Amino acid sequence: MKHSDKPAEEGYELWLRYVPIEDEALLATYRTRITSLVCVSDSPTLKVAQAELLRGIKGLLGVSIPLTDTIQPGAVVFGHPDLAPPTLGDEGYIIKRLNEAIVIAGNTDIGVLYGVFHFLRLLQTHQPLDNVHIESAPKLKYRILNHWDNLDGTIERGYAGFSFWDWHKLPDYLAPRYTEYARAVTSIGINGAALTNVNANALSLTPQYLRKAAALADLFRPYGIRVYLSARFSAPLEIAGLKTADPLDAGVIAWWQAKAQEIYQIIPDFGGFIVKANSEGQPGPHDYYRSHSDGANLLANALAPFGGIVIWRAFVYASENPEDRTKQAYDDLVPQDGLFAANVLLQVKNGPLDFQPREPYHPIFGAMSHTSLMLEVQMAQEYLGLATHMVYMAPLFKETLDAETCDGPVAKTVLGMAGVANTGSDRNWCGHPFGAANWYTFGRLAWDYTLSSEAIADEWLRMTFSNDTPFVQKATGMMLTSREAPVNYMTPLGLHHIMARSHHYGPGPWVTGGRPDWTSLYYHQADSEGIGFNRTPSGSNAVSQYCSPYREQLAHLDTCPENLLLWFHHVAWRHVLKSGRTLWDELCFKYNEGVTQVRRMQADWDSLAEYVDAARFEHVRALLAIQEKEARWWRDACLLYFQTFSKQPIPADYEQPAASLEYYMNLQHYFVPGIPEQRF
Amino acid sequence: MKHSDKPAEEGYELWLRYVPIEDEALLATYRTRITSLVCVSDSPTLKVAQAELLRGIKGLLGVSIPLTDTIQPGAVVFGHPDLAPPTLGDEGYIIKRLNEAIVIAGNTDIGVLYGVFHFLRLLQTHQPLDNVHIESAPKLKYRILNHWDNLDGTIERGYAGFSFWDWHKLPDYLAPRYTEYARAVTSIGINGAALTNVNANALSLTPQYLRKAAALADLFRPYGIRVYLSARFSAPLEIAGLKTADPLDAGVIAWWQAKAQEIYQIIPDFGGFIVKANSEGQPGPHDYYRSHSDGANLLANALAPFGGIVIWRAFVYASENPEDRTKQAYDDLVPQDGLFAANVLLQVKNGPLDFQPREPYHPIFGAMSHTSLMLEVQMAQEYLGLATHMVYMAPLFKETLDAETCDGPVAKTVLGMAGVANTGSDRNWCGHPFGAANWYTFGRLAWDYTLSSEAIADEWLRMTFSNDTPFVQKATGMMLTSREAPVNYMTPLGLHHIMARSHHYGPGPWVTGGRPDWTSLYYHQADSEGIGFNRTPSGSNAVSQYCSPYREQLAHLDTCPENLLLWFHHVAWRHVLKSGRTLWDELCFKYNEGVTQVRRMQADWDSLAEYVDAARFEHVRALLAIQEKEARWWRDACLLYFQTFSKQPIPADYEQPAASLEYYMNLQHYFVPGIPEQRF
Repeated sequence: MKHSDKPAEEGYELWLRYVPIEDEALLATYRTRITSLVCVSDSPTLKVAQAELLRGIKGLLGVSIPLTDTIQPGAVVFGHPDLAPPTLGDEGYIIKRLNEAIVIAGNTDIGVLYGVFHFLRLLQTHQPLDNVHIESAPKLKYRILNHWDNLDGTIERGYAGFSFWDWHKLPDYLAPRYTEYARAVTSIGINGAALTNVNANALSLTPQYLRKAAALADLFRPYGIRVYLSARFSAPLEIAGLKTADPLDAGVIAWWQAKAQEIYQIIPDFGGFIVKANSEGQPGPHDYYRSHSDGANLLANALAPFGGIVIWRAFVYASENPEDRTKQAYDDLVPQDGLFAANVLLQVKNGPLDFQPREPYHPIFGAMSHTSLMLEVQMAQEYLGLATHMVYMAPLFKETLDAETCDGPVAKTVLGMAGVANTGSDRNWCGHPFGAANWYTFGRLAWDYTLSSEAIADEWLRMTFSNDTPFVQKATGMMLTSREAPVNYMTPLGLHHIMARSHHYGPGPWVTGGRPDWTSLYYHQADSEGIGFNRTPSGSNAVSQYCSPYREQLAHLDTCPENLLLWFHHVAWRHVLKSGRTLWDELCFKYNEGVTQVRRMQADWDSLAEYVDAARFEHVRALLAIQEKEARWWRDACLLYFQTFSKQPIPADYEQPAASLEYYMNLQHYFVPGIPEQRF
Repeated sequence: MKHSDKPAEEGYELWLRYVPIEDEALLATYRTRITSLVCVSDSPTLKVAQAELLRGIKGLLGVSIPLTDTIQPGAVVFGHPDLAPPTLGDEGYIIKRLNEAIVIAGNTDIGVLYGVFHFLRLLQTHQPLDNVHIESAPKLKYRILNHWDNLDGTIERGYAGFSFWDWHKLPDYLAPRYTEYARAVTSIGINGAALTNVNANALSLTPQYLRKAAALADLFRPYGIRVYLSARFSAPLEIAGLKTADPLDAGVIAWWQAKAQEIYQIIPDFGGFIVKANSEGQPGPHDYYRSHSDGANLLANALAPFGGIVIWRAFVYASENPEDRTKQAYDDLVPQDGLFAANVLLQVKNGPLDFQPREPYHPIFGAMSHTSLMLEVQMAQEYLGLATHMVYMAPLFKETLDAETCDGPVAKTVLGMAGVANTGSDRNWCGHPFGAANWYTFGRLAWDYTLSSEAIADEWLRMTFSNDTPFVQKATGMMLTSREAPVNYMTPLGLHHIMARSHHYGPGPWVTGGRPDWTSLYYHQADSEGIGFNRTPSGSNAVSQYCSPYREQLAHLDTCPENLLLWFHHVAWRHVLKSGRTLWDELCFKYNEGVTQVRRMQADWDSLAEYVDAARFEHVRALLAIQEKEARWWRDACLLYFQTFSKQPIPADYEQPAASLEYYMNLQHYFVPGIPEQRF
């Protein structure tokens, strides 16, 4: 294979590279269409917009165009609120050709900035401008990145290095990277950043740390990014010496009110709190025999006078509860529908368990019509091979967004989307050169969930790598394949949570011991008869949490989608699937198919060397080799393990396992990224 | 102040930027002197040399010169061993103009590579080539970076982000940064890298991790960099299940022999082990009532057949010992002089305590003539303001290198130098844009300890920032000032170890409780009479560890250098110093002088805006502002605290403390970098 001679890149510029357009005809056209900038205001946000336009045009067209006061042919006029239809709301924009000029207008400055980034995206992806007329407004109000970054610089489930929030040097030193982050985030319409881990540290609410957060908020303000902080429910005990954190205690109420006031004095546009309470050891209102709504409303009432919100996570399950874990959040929260304050949003993961390669949609969606909901997705690849596996998540996110509840598709039941960030200190932000596609996807879908996975891949690839058609076509195919590949080599047919314990790196279907619902056996239920978790009425009846007709569809073996089969059913090894294969043979097929898909991705990538600089090309190539190796590890370990129940051979036309089950079970991995507290 | 319009830089290229030479006359001359490359071999090392020459010449001169087989005028001929004097040894080189060509020759390929980097340095610093004739060979054999990087990605005393060894992805993915590291390291003559923390994890000696280290060793080999690993003395217990780690036990001996063989099978040029034993909780031979030489020789004998060495750290002190801590290493080790195997090097810190802003030289130097010694210095600023303070360490290192022992200067008593690396994942490698100067200095002094601090600063500045004379002059002045400034605002007049506990961030002269020798009171001994540690014969008599006449010089108040006064003497508050000021007034003067020096550095830097790109300029500026703030913090806190003993006023012509002693004593800092294990 022959490398391209393109200059080495490291991915730091993400999708905002603004590299010179090589197509001479297109370049000539753009240069006549874009000859000057006209702006009527110099607000901080419009200054950002102007700088971005100058930078983008300089990079893409190779020209520095003048700023003028008069609109001439070729002018790009931005910031004119009078030209924006009121229907676009606070964040929407219009991009329109008008009398030989191009107008980028919004009702607010931030709307204009979003429009500017869209305009630059048109140029980056080589779109025609002649009849451009775009009107766009976000379909969801809240589009928030959730950073699980800790104050000590580690990131929970962070696979791209460590945190780039340098709390130690804040507020005095503002790293240039913060500005690059703001540009990237805003370019895809994200309007909030929760800076700190949901497994929260109360210190983040002390004056010392609030000043640090305020410095970031000041920097982010022109970009329309509101800062959110995770709030530890027991903070009044830990940083204020109160004797209780009971949400109905007058002293506690007063403390949170004062804390809210203190925060808004230095961060006037503070977004609000995100709270993980009474889940996985986190403190919460249950500690005082109060409900989640009691806890959420305590904080919400404190923030309400200042316009802040509380994002209360629905990822709750009891430390001891014999009930099917996937049912617990629903059981706990749905009865409280209508009890939450108006400025509380309940943030619900896409599925009822925990970011598995594939889950059914969370049954809370469509079941709490009197509560504002957020959809939480995870770009960090906690269960998807960490940052070494290429997994494009747009199809995954869209499976949930498009899933039909009785209130319509999930997307219509939520006010916002939260994405657990996959960013870190790695130069390319996300570890894997394709990781940024998921960050990008999150922003694009939160703005417009009707976008197709293909369309998002297409524009991301063009901006990130190349507009060459053969490249874009083949790489889009790779990305789309990459959604199903890990499902196949890790957890096909609805299997779930059979990863190694704690760090989730590699297969661990044999994991047992300790809490049942933290073992793999709990989830796969393999025995000599078959495999899978019976969640039908004859089992845990989790299907009952879905409304009709979905519950019936899921409850029946023949109507349950096969890709969720073992999520809902305990299925006999000899049960015949649609393919005509028995369950065992289908498992063997799927695990092998996953490996095959990765190999196809490798071959596709190898064929694209001429389109990508050697540095990024070789980086992806090395990671695909790791992915292929680990796909085989998953396949061999899982099939050998499940074979101890099925007692059937792996069909001879498949690759046979490279080692013994004992070998795989004895593999030990230390210092897997994303588990900061793990020490040998 | 007006920023320069130079393009933004981040410091990633370190001193190997190879930016175009702007001086047209010089450029024209260089272009006639350098017109082709001639190389007679294509060994891996000479391929590296050739690539570096092409890259450097392309960058500096803007031309791509051809590789030819024949020597014509303007040829740069490299790799000719026949042209190298044998006296240059294995690593030396000659750079010489010969018949209109320039010859870079060495007896070995690595000698040539060092010569190539020197040649490029000549161009980078705008040196004339017409009569160039340089012969250079390292004055010290071992020039080793000590990385205190942990397998989990943290760095002990790391202030520039986290580790850039990505153990998780090794050996499959070799980050480009490893190659950049190798280039930088080799360019300054460093020939070894100890990859792992001296507070060692036995896992680094397991096959899984050895394969990772081997991948790095393979990459480093052409650069002449040998890989060393820290060895945990108790590894046989921890990773092999032996019942003892007793160095005289046959099973233990056999285990280390087999381990050495295993290592050399995959790393044939493995450098050896570095060991911290029986110090600060690390296991060691004392656990079995054996001596340090027993322990060191165990490992040395295992490595000897393969040419490896053991670097045994002399930083040892007992967990319970009433003796003056600064005396313990000498007491423990000097009696063992002559007992260490030939391939053991004893690695001795520059001073007898622990990398304080200023220490006397370690009395082991000159006292163990039958033992091979290494000098250990620390670029990581554990006690020097972390990576936020500008502290140029060449003068500090040279104070020790030049210090006279009875065997001559310290430099003549050692076989090598080890430097605790200040590198991390920060884009600019060392956190502070001036931090790399200390990395650079370490390499340059280890190669040639006769270089002056000014000369090293001059060449580093020219390569890192600018050849403009006004810039180089003023910035050199700043760097030289920066050595004494922190001594003044932290620990003037020989004070030591009065930093905050554990993380050492900020002042903590009041630190007490726990082990006496981990408190500040132990070291400053302030009372109503005076301040300082009496190490004369009437006190701990640590001076007796120095030979005559140095011991007498240090023992007497009037001959002891004032900059070490309180290290060796308990001095009365009203004692009059050479300045004519009393000790108390001199302390006040020095603490204020430190702040003044930082302010002078700030003013100097502000005057240099036109010479430095805005990005690096503003970065340094922000950090100098932090340094000034923290210098005041140090001054005010220390003077207020010591005032409780002196009972004297801070002279009115100095700035008075900004807050109360109580305020400073109550300051709490969490998550200070460099203390991975610290959790709230």
